[in-house]
This record gives sequence, structure tokens and C-alpha cells, in this order.
Amino acid sequence: MSFERIFKAESIAIIGASKDETKRGYQAIKILQEEKYDGQIFPVNPKESSILGLKCYKSVLDIPETIDLALVTTPARTLKQILEDCAAKGAAGAVVIAGGFGELGEEGKRFEAEIVNVARSKKIRIIGPNTSGMINVAKGLNLVGLQNVPRGSIALLTQSGNIALTLITEAGLKSRMGFNYYVGVGNEADIRFHEYLEYFTEDPDTEAILMYVEGLREGRKFLQQASRTTRVKPIVLFKSGRSAKGSKSAGSHTGALAGISEVAESAFRRAGIITVQHSDEMFPIAESLASLPLIEDGAIAILADGGGHATIAADFLTELGITIPELEQKTRNRLAAILPPNASLANPIDVAGGTDQNPSIFADCAEILLEDENIQGLLIVGLFGGYGIRFAKKLAFMEEDAAHRMGKMVRKTRKPILLHSLYNFAKPHALDLLRYYHIPVYDSLEIACKCVEALSFYGGYRKEHRQESTFQFNWGARAQREGEEIINSELAEGRTALLEHNAKELLRLHGAPVTLDRLARDEDEAVAFARNAGYNVAMKIVSPDILHKTDAGGVKLKLKNEQAVREAFNEIIRNARAYRPDADIRGCIVSPMSGEGVEIIIGTKNDDQFGPIIMFGLGGILVEVIKDVSFRVLPVSREWAASMIDEIKTSVILDGVRGRPPYDKEAIIDLILKVSEIIEAYPVIHEMDLNPVIVHEKGLTIVDARIILSEENIMKKKTLSLSLGDSEG
Amino acid sequence: MSFERIFKAESIAIIGASKDETKRGYQAIKILQEEKYDGQIFPVNPKESSILGLKCYKSVLDIPETIDLALVTTPARTLKQILEDCAAKGAAGAVVIAGGFGELGEEGKRFEAEIVNVARSKKIRIIGPNTSGMINVAKGLNLVGLQNVPRGSIALLTQSGNIALTLITEAGLKSRMGFNYYVGVGNEADIRFHEYLEYFTEDPDTEAILMYVEGLREGRKFLQQASRTTRVKPIVLFKSGRSAKGSKSAGSHTGALAGISEVAESAFRRAGIITVQHSDEMFPIAESLASLPLIEDGAIAILADGGGHATIAADFLTELGITIPELEQKTRNRLAAILPPNASLANPIDVAGGTDQNPSIFADCAEILLEDENIQGLLIVGLFGGYGIRFAKKLAFMEEDAAHRMGKMVRKTRKPILLHSLYNFAKPHALDLLRYYHIPVYDSLEIACKCVEALSFYGGYRKEHRQESTFQFNWGARAQREGEEIINSELAEGRTALLEHNAKELLRLHGAPVTLDRLARDEDEAVAFARNAGYNVAMKIVSPDILHKTDAGGVKLKLKNEQAVREAFNEIIRNARAYRPDADIRGCIVSPMSGEGVEIIIGTKNDDQFGPIIMFGLGGILVEVIKDVSFRVLPVSREWAASMIDEIKTSVILDGVRGRPPYDKEAIIDLILKVSEIIEAYPVIHEMDLNPVIVHEKGLTIVDARIILSEENIMKKKTLSLSLGDSEG
Repeated sequence: MSFERIFKAESIAIIGASKDETKRGYQAIKILQEEKYDGQIFPVNPKESSILGLKCYKSVLDIPETIDLALVTTPARTLKQILEDCAAKGAAGAVVIAGGFGELGEEGKRFEAEIVNVARSKKIRIIGPNTSGMINVAKGLNLVGLQNVPRGSIALLTQSGNIALTLITEAGLKSRMGFNYYVGVGNEADIRFHEYLEYFTEDPDTEAILMYVEGLREGRKFLQQASRTTRVKPIVLFKSGRSAKGSKSAGSHTGALAGISEVAESAFRRAGIITVQHSDEMFPIAESLASLPLIEDGAIAILADGGGHATIAADFLTELGITIPELEQKTRNRLAAILPPNASLANPIDVAGGTDQNPSIFADCAEILLEDENIQGLLIVGLFGGYGIRFAKKLAFMEEDAAHRMGKMVRKTRKPILLHSLYNFAKPHALDLLRYYHIPVYDSLEIACKCVEALSFYGGYRKEHRQESTFQFNWGARAQREGEEIINSELAEGRTALLEHNAKELLRLHGAPVTLDRLARDEDEAVAFARNAGYNVAMKIVSPDILHKTDAGGVKLKLKNEQAVREAFNEIIRNARAYRPDADIRGCIVSPMSGEGVEIIIGTKNDDQFGPIIMFGLGGILVEVIKDVSFRVLPVSREWAASMIDEIKTSVILDGVRGRPPYDKEAIIDLILKVSEIIEAYPVIHEMDLNPVIVHEKGLTIVDARIILSEENIMKKKTLSLSLGDSEG
Repeated sequence: MSFERIFKAESIAIIGASKDETKRGYQAIKILQEEKYDGQIFPVNPKESSILGLKCYKSVLDIPETIDLALVTTPARTLKQILEDCAAKGAAGAVVIAGGFGELGEEGKRFEAEIVNVARSKKIRIIGPNTSGMINVAKGLNLVGLQNVPRGSIALLTQSGNIALTLITEAGLKSRMGFNYYVGVGNEADIRFHEYLEYFTEDPDTEAILMYVEGLREGRKFLQQASRTTRVKPIVLFKSGRSAKGSKSAGSHTGALAGISEVAESAFRRAGIITVQHSDEMFPIAESLASLPLIEDGAIAILADGGGHATIAADFLTELGITIPELEQKTRNRLAAILPPNASLANPIDVAGGTDQNPSIFADCAEILLEDENIQGLLIVGLFGGYGIRFAKKLAFMEEDAAHRMGKMVRKTRKPILLHSLYNFAKPHALDLLRYYHIPVYDSLEIACKCVEALSFYGGYRKEHRQESTFQFNWGARAQREGEEIINSELAEGRTALLEHNAKELLRLHGAPVTLDRLARDEDEAVAFARNAGYNVAMKIVSPDILHKTDAGGVKLKLKNEQAVREAFNEIIRNARAYRPDADIRGCIVSPMSGEGVEIIIGTKNDDQFGPIIMFGLGGILVEVIKDVSFRVLPVSREWAASMIDEIKTSVILDGVRGRPPYDKEAIIDLILKVSEIIEAYPVIHEMDLNPVIVHEKGLTIVDARIILSEENIMKKKTLSLSLGDSEG
């Protein structure tokens, strides 16, 4: 794979090398030398013969050997020729620092597209442009200019050099963990987030991937790759540019489409990504995930000396959905044997001064707690690390003993210990020892709790996805062929909005329970269909020219006998003619009135970043006023369909309130899955709107269905349906 | 005031003074000497003649002079005698360290109450018990044992010594701001939070009050005092013990009732208190408020060098409700004149490397921005403080110049500047200079944003309350006298639940629009009342023994003629007899059917911590299922009544959805105010439930009302009504 030659380049050309110390072309060579880069450096500058002791070449083409990578520090306009030259010398990639591309608007975008075309045709990949660069820390391949990057197993991908600087600074100050790679993705013109992700997924030295994202150019591909990545290793992601002002601010320096939809958060979670809300949680959470065993069942113990910190942690963890379970009686007895009588043996555990003479008792408590069946991890809060400072120096040695024991305990039990210490600032040796054993130590109690949440979320995700079977579609080729025919007949008439009865027929073909609608072309047909249905029918106008049927007086309900049906048919036709004299009127749909139940709405649309998405909500004011709806990127699994229902605030209504029996949630899940299948099967469908659907105690009925085809997909669709016809004929 | 003699004690007795270095009675004297306490210290211990060079007394009574304060380090059981002795020596207060009181359960609570009785009778006040102590930093009066407490103008009140330690450590590490007082309130047995608050409100050296609260013993008095305090100076409050586990954890060491209700958050905000969600925001927010001018209109500018930080800040501030307004054209022109062409002149402003050669340009930008009419404050994020580190040492001097200028700018414009710097860790001199000018510097971008929010919330609060008129009740003495009669008649019959028509009559007396109910004792009366009302009436059973009228078949609606009324009367009576043969049946209420409208519910109850509170919500599933309700502590003002309506998620329904005209919000506000008045007027009312109330396009109708009297208040009430009768007779 060519990325290997980029990220582990054995030779690099510095285009725009310089003797001017203020220039990037000087600094780049200087830092490669300082960081003891173990490959070859070829400075390129037509005006110099040597720079920093290295021979300088007039042109890339003059370099006597093949190069793996080029760092381009010259302005945007020089780029085309440089890419061609580098490709001629066999370069796998180029890191392009210059701005002046897509971030400058339409003209910049066109220029960027041209550059990408050159790169693609010459088979050379571009990091950037408008990037701070790339670093392979172990190799000394530092193309950024940031010094003292702490080494570790986190791969860092950002769209902001400032944020990289912030995270690298923080890691150096507060941790023993660091980075193996840094990539400033810049404008993502050529190499996209999902491609970097794929590389780091395969990379054996990467334990966690940390991302700062302002906008994703290919959200759907990113999600697909992320789903594969998170089966193996964690992704921690901070999404910036959520607000209009933030998005504008992001736009002004990367040129990428910023903007998060309601969809993104759930899509990220579904892909197993740990999303971070505050930037100061980014590094600590990545550090925890790169260092510690996961928490599978979200149940932990809190251990403290005195109140305050334990109370705050218990509150915050509860709000984050973490359980703080009761301890086994055996555990309580064992704790009682080593702690003073005023200690609190409930979880949170308060040693109540019981460690003042010997803080190594923390390790004894930790051992007892981690052996409790109910406890999957331990958070120690408050004073550990400070006993040697507060009381007597010798206590520091006991704290160090405890640190050694707790470090080994995590390895043995595979349950994590996390530590908050207000003495972190004093850098006691015991805390450094804990870090040596990959137990992170935090200044902030809330950030420690957030790390517990992340270990627990990801632990739960990994556990769940060990058992998951692959998602299978269950519709047959026959249903799809007939569905294609319906769509083709609509297209043949030049419509992109399917007639209601055709939309329902498409749903029915795939097993979705629609009302049994019949298109009556005249009064007598209407009566015949109504009689067949046993009367109590609804009737609606059918006309490609009338979209809002109620407004046109084109809907009549609860028609209970022949006379009512006849009158209704004639009135509907009359109203429709009055409403729109030139309308192409096909007749009336006749359908049985739906039984008692609760209204729901299911809809799909195409999102700019993530492609087809689905929405679910309860009908009426709950959707219209409270906007109480859930979204998912399609396709969805049965579990995710179920979670869409649970997620809305009003889902209790489906359980039956005010003494009503519960409604059929399984039927809703089945319908969501059907819709997911249909959208997957017919890429030509742009939007689908099932509104209302009536859910009964048993089963449900789709009362109205609207399907809109994508204008831009119609051409593709035509080709597709032909080829399908061929292969299945 | 006796608190003056406690917090500025000129002489102090150390009860339980000791020569043992591990004992509090030794450490206390040692630290008073080290901190150069400027008063007299009198050690007390029957077994010693001198300690640390001071003469030691056998008993408090042996001290030859009057004492202001006593520090009691001896066990709980010794306390009674000590308090009596201290009082005899004229002490104004005692700081009681020992635990063993209310936090140990019922027996401890009784003991605590006895101690408080002794103290009250002897006129000596108690801080604690179960406290870490008290500090007057300026005076060296340090009764805690914490050293190096940084001096400043924040008064710190906590219920956890650990949290005090955390905050004091943080202040020392990260700020030039510190504390003037610290009080560990312990069990709040005698002196309560609101009394401390009153003292610090008067104290001229206190600029801000910072509180860590696990439970309030007298929430209502606290709110009243807090409202007075926040007219003068800010209160920053972190409320702990919100979750069941957290509450339990808090309970195990302070013995106070922890537990926050949905009410507390809104009650705190209403009192002008700045509530803090994360403990790591406590000190920074207090520091900002003690240091900076407030932001009145919540509109600020963000200034950055490069992307990332500005984007994150813009997102987060937007989510916090802060406006990031457009700049005036004049401002943009002035910025354009000093910044490079690629700089972003929209807000957030990105200097885009324009300060690389001269970071004092930050001060130029700050000056231009603060002169913009739309801008009330400035947040600088990212790299300031690091130019001297990143590029050349001489740039540090330019940063220092900028710091001096910005410091003076804040004083001159009375608009705050806040700074986030990722170079804070390196302690550059420029950042220390900013702190000298009371411009705080933060490591965390999110915390900087939270400080902006706090300055803005409190600025808005202060502005609003400059104009506010005092809230006046508008009910007359006559209404109240007649109301008392209704209540007394119910009490005379031994009922605590008012009969429905009496409850409504009470509401009507105070001008609330109830349905015109008449109690019909027989069929003919019912017909007469129904005819008077023009028919279309509802009828409901009246019986003190039947609370659930619908279950008993005791409700009939929409009765449109004489026959229907007669049949309904007889059927209701029959049903009631069948439902409960021994019921005391008084007849039926006859009331006109309410007109079209939307259902609301208004209720009141008594909260353990805050006393009477009021609830508002829309009727039906919106309250029952979604729990979409708002709460306030009573009484409420017109503004707060209006905010209760705006606060619920479904309030848009009142604006008229699906083409309906809007409903009468003013009538709802009036009703909330009426209820507030009634609850204030009759302390005997324990709960009131108006459900449903039908709100029309114009006006509203209370369809059903339930009023429950407090059993425990009935005796008080009887006395009260007698005395009222006397004074008004």
C-alpha cells in the first residue's frame, strides 16, 4: 500500500528548501536533523547548492535516487509541475503546506480539483493542501515543526494545527502517553479521513485514534470505515463547527463543509466512535482508551478519603449513566477488617482517614473491590499521591508501594483503575509510577468521570459487536423486479412523485402492511371496492397534479354504505375539478378505514454528508411541535431500529398510558427495517414519507405514503434497471 | 454583630491544646503562630503548663481576659460544659471540629439539638460541628491547618474540607486571586448558610462568594438572603449530592439532608446565583466574577490566531446562549488596516499570523473591538503568551506591552477581557501581568467560555434588577377574611381536603375565573341551576367520602335539557350509593360546560428545602408522559410567571399550532399570580391542584380544583385566624 511509503518514507524531498531561518523550507530540514530522521533528505531549490550541510538540487528531477515523499513548501501556483516531477521520481505522496485552494471559495475549489486530477493521473497522493504537515514520531519523520512530541500509541488526525499543538503540549505536560503519528488533514482534497483511518486501523503500533474534525467530505465512507475500525481499536472524535458561527469560523481556514446534523451524533455512536463534547477531554479520553482495559458493564466502585470528591463523582457518573452498584457482603466484610469503624463501606467507599498512617491500604481496598463480582472498574478520587506531602515523607514510599501493586492488579484482573488526585500538580513519584503502569492520573474530577464513561461506552460496544450477526436483507429478487416496474412506469410518465397507490404497492411488495387501496375510476368501481372491503372506507382523489388532497376537498372518511360512497365519489371529483380545472384526474382510491391506534411517522431523506437517513416519531403535535424524533443513517439493524423507538421522549405512549394496552412495537421495528431495505434496494428513491402510520395493539397500517424519486439519480436508475433486467431475465 | 467578633476575633482559646505534634490541638497553635495571627492565643489543657511558648490554662475559666472565640478540638461529649465555660468568658463563638452529631443518625441529631439549645441559651454561636474550621486570611486567623492560602477577595463556604483544599490548591497554582475568608460550615447545626451569607454581603473586602453545598437546612431563608446578596455581589454555587448515590455519599459525612429537586436550579437562578455544573469550573468562575466587569448584554467578540480554538469557542458559547455579533463596518475597516489580507474580520476574528512579527497587535485589535458598540466583552483564545516561546524572545516583551495595555483597557472601558492560552503552563511573564490587572488566564477553552457565560448571566441579572419594582399583593383583606371562613368551616367538619365547590369559592374570592358551580341538593334544584346557566352543563357528585368522582360514576357531561339533567342527577346519586353505600352524599355540583380551549394544569406543594413551590404544564399526556412542566419557588413575580410558560417545551402549542389562533397567555400569568397570592395568604394550604384549567382564546376557566390543608399547620392556623379576626374586627 502506498500509504506505507508515505508514513514510513525512507527518503524525502524538501521542495522550497531555504537558508533563511524564518522560512519553513529551512525549519523543516533543521527539525528532521534534530529529530534524527533515519531516512535520506534531498533539499530542492534552484538557487542553492547546499543547505544545512546537505547537497541541494535545482529540481526534483535532479535527485539521483527514487524518493518516497515530498514536502512542498512553495506557493500553490507551483504545485502542478512539482507533483508531476515528484511522480516522475517515483514519489508515493506529497505533503502540501500552501493554502490558496478550496478554502478561498469557488475558484479555489476548481483549482483544487485540477490539482487532484493531476495527482490521480500521476498516481501520487496528497496530504493537504493547507495542512500543518505530518509526523511519524518513532522515525523522526517530522514534517510539522512541532518539537518534543511525546511518543506513544495514539494516532492523531486533525483539521487544525492549533489543536494539534494544544494536544501535544497537554500530553507532554500531564501524561506518559503520547503519539505515534500526527496528520494535519488540511483541506482533505485527495486523501480523506476514511483513508487515514483505514491505514491506522491496520497499523500495529496504534492503540487509539484521536480526531479533531470540522467537516467530513465523505461522511458515509467515513462511517463505514469507522465501523470496521472500532471493531479493533477505539476512535475518539471531537466534532467542531456545530454552530453557525463555529462553522463559519472553521470554513474560513479549511474550506471544508462544516456543520453537524442531528444525525451525526447518533451515526458516530452507532459506528462505535467515542464522541467528545469538550476539547479538554480529548487527550485524557484517548489516553485512557490507549492505556486501560475496557469496562464491559458500566459498573464501577468509587474509592475516596473523606467526602466531597466522592459525592461529586457519584453525581456526575450517575448523570453519565454509569452504575455505582452495591458491594457484595463478602467485600464489605473484607473492607471492614482493614478500615476504621467510621469508614463508609457502601459504594462510594470512604476510608475516612483510615489511610492516614498507611496509604498503601488504598491498594488493599482496590484489590478487594476489583475481586467483587459486581465491580468492573475502580475510580480513586481525591488525596492519593498527597499523603507523603501532607503528613510525613515516609508515607510517600507507602504510596509508591500501592502504585506498584495497583499497576500489576490492572494487568492481572483486566479491570481498569483510574485516578483523580489533587496533588497531581506536585508531581509525586507515586503518580508517575501509576502512569508507568498505564494508569492515567487526572487533575479534573469531571474529566476522570468522562474517561470512565468512555471506557464503559466502548466496552459495551465491543462486547455487543462480538456477538452481532451480519445484517441480511430478506426481500426477494422478484419483489425488487416488480418494484422496478412500478418505478419505471412512473418515470415513463415523467413523474418523480409516485402516485399514492403505486407508492403503497411498492411497500406492499416488500411486505409492509399498507391499507388495501384500490383505484376506482368511476362511481360503480368505487362501490364495488367498498362493498368488497365490507364498507367503512376512506376515499381520496388520485391526480398527479394534486399533492395536497385535503386542501382540494379530495378526502372523505368513514363512508358506511353504497349511497355515501356514490355521493363521496362525485363530490371529490367535483371538488378536484373546481380546485384545479386542468388537473389530470385518475379517479379515487378506496381503502378500508384503519382500526384504532396511535399515529406514527416514518420518513427518509438524503443527507449531504451521510447519504440516506431515516426519521421516526409519534404523529401529530409530538412531531410537529416538540420535534420529538430520532434519526439514524441507513441501513439500520434490528437493534438500531429498536433504539430509535426507545430514544424518543414520548416512547412511553407506545407502552400504553392511562390504562391503554401497549401498542405493537415489534411491528414498528419491522417497518423501519422494511424501509431500510427498500431505500437500499432502490437508490433512485430520494425521499419516502409514511405519514400517518397507525399502530394497533397488534400490527400496524400505513395510511398514507409518499415516495419521491431523485431527479439526478434517474439517469443512473435507468441504466441500473436495464442491467438488472438483463441479469435476472 | 457577634459575627464580627467571630470572624475578626482578637483573642482565641484553643480547647484541647496539646504538645503532641500529631494532634490538632498542637497544629492549631503552630499554624496561628506561623501565619502571624495578630490576636492573643490561650491554650487550654488541664495537664500542661505551657505549649509552644504560650502559657497553658487548666480551664477556659482560668483565662484572665475576655475571649472572642474558642477552637474546640476535644471530643463531642465534652462540648456542653465547654460551651458554658466559653460563654462565661464572653466568647461570641466556638468552632467545633468534632464529629459524632447529626451525621450519625437520630441519636446524634438529638444530641446536636441539645448542644444548640445550650448555645442559644448562653448566647454563643457555633461553627460546625463536624467542620474543618474557619480562616480569616488577612488576620492570620487560621483555624483549619491549611497553609499558604492565597489572599484575595473571594469568601469560600463549603461543606467539605477536601473541596476547600482542592480550591485553595488550584487558586495557588493558577491564579493571583485568592480568598479572604474560608468557612467549613460542617453540620450547619447552629449558624446556617444564610447567616454566613449575610455577613459576607456586608463585608467590604468580599467581592464574590463561592459555595460548595451538599444540602441546605433552610433553603427558603437561604434563597431570601441570596436574593439580597446578589443585588450587591455574586454568589457562585456548586450543588452536590444530586443523585441518590451522591446524596448518600454526602449524607455519610455531613448528616445534612442532601438532594436537589427540579426546583432548586430555577430557584437558585431566580435568586441571581451563578450555579456551576462541574467542580473544576468553581474557582475560575468565582475568580472571573471577583476580578472583571460584568457583561450586560451577552454579546462578545472572539479573537484568535488561526483556526481551531476560535471554532470551538464559537460553538460552545453559542450553545451557552452567548451572542457573537457582527462587527460594525467601522470596526472591520480599522481591523483591516492592521491585519494581513487573509485575516478573518468577521467575528470570531482570526489574525491569521498577523501577530507573528508583533504580538502587541493583539492589544490594538482588543482596543478596536471593545470600542465597537455591539461588543460587550472580549475572549482571546489560543496562542497569546507563547509568541516569545515560539518565535523569538523579543516578542515576549511585545506581549508584555500588550498585557499592560489590555489591563488598562478593561479598567477604562469597563468591558471584560478573558484569555485562554495554551502557553499558560510555561508561565510567561505577559500572562502574569494580565493577572496583575485582574484579567484571568485559563488553560481550558471550555472553562474560559463558562466564565464568559457567568459574567453574562450575572450581568444580565444585575441589569434587570436595577429596574425591578417591588412585588405587591393585590388581594383585599375582605377576600381573605371570607376565605378564612371557608377554610374554618371545612376544618370544623374535620376535613383537610376542601369540597370542590368550596375550593372553587376560595379561588373565586381572589378573582380567579372558576366555573360557576352550584351545589344542587335535589333534582329540582339541579334543573333550576341548569336552566339559569342556559343548559349544556356538567354535573358532578359532591361527597367528602368520594374523591375519585369519575370512578364512582359521579360525573356527567354536556347535559342539554331538563330531562337529561333529571336523569343525570338520579343516576349520579344511584351510582354513588352503589359505589360506597355509607357515603355522606351532599348532592351534585351543576356547572356550565367550559368553552373550547387547551388544557393546562397548575399545582402547588410544599418542598422540604424550599417551602411552597408551584408547577405549571399543559394538560393530558404532555404532563403525564413527557413530564413537560416548570417549577418555581413561591411567591412569583409577573416576569417569573411568564418565564414558567416559556420554559416548557410545549409552550408553542399556546401560540396556536396547525392554524389555530393563540390562547390567552396573559390569563395564565394572572392565574399563576393569583395562586401565588393565595398560597402566601393561607399558610394552612398544603397543596393546591387546578386540573384541568381550560385556556380559551380570551380568558380561561378552572374546571376542577383541589385544595388540601396541612395537618400540622391546622393548629397554627386556628391561632392565626383568631388573631387575624381580632386585628381586623
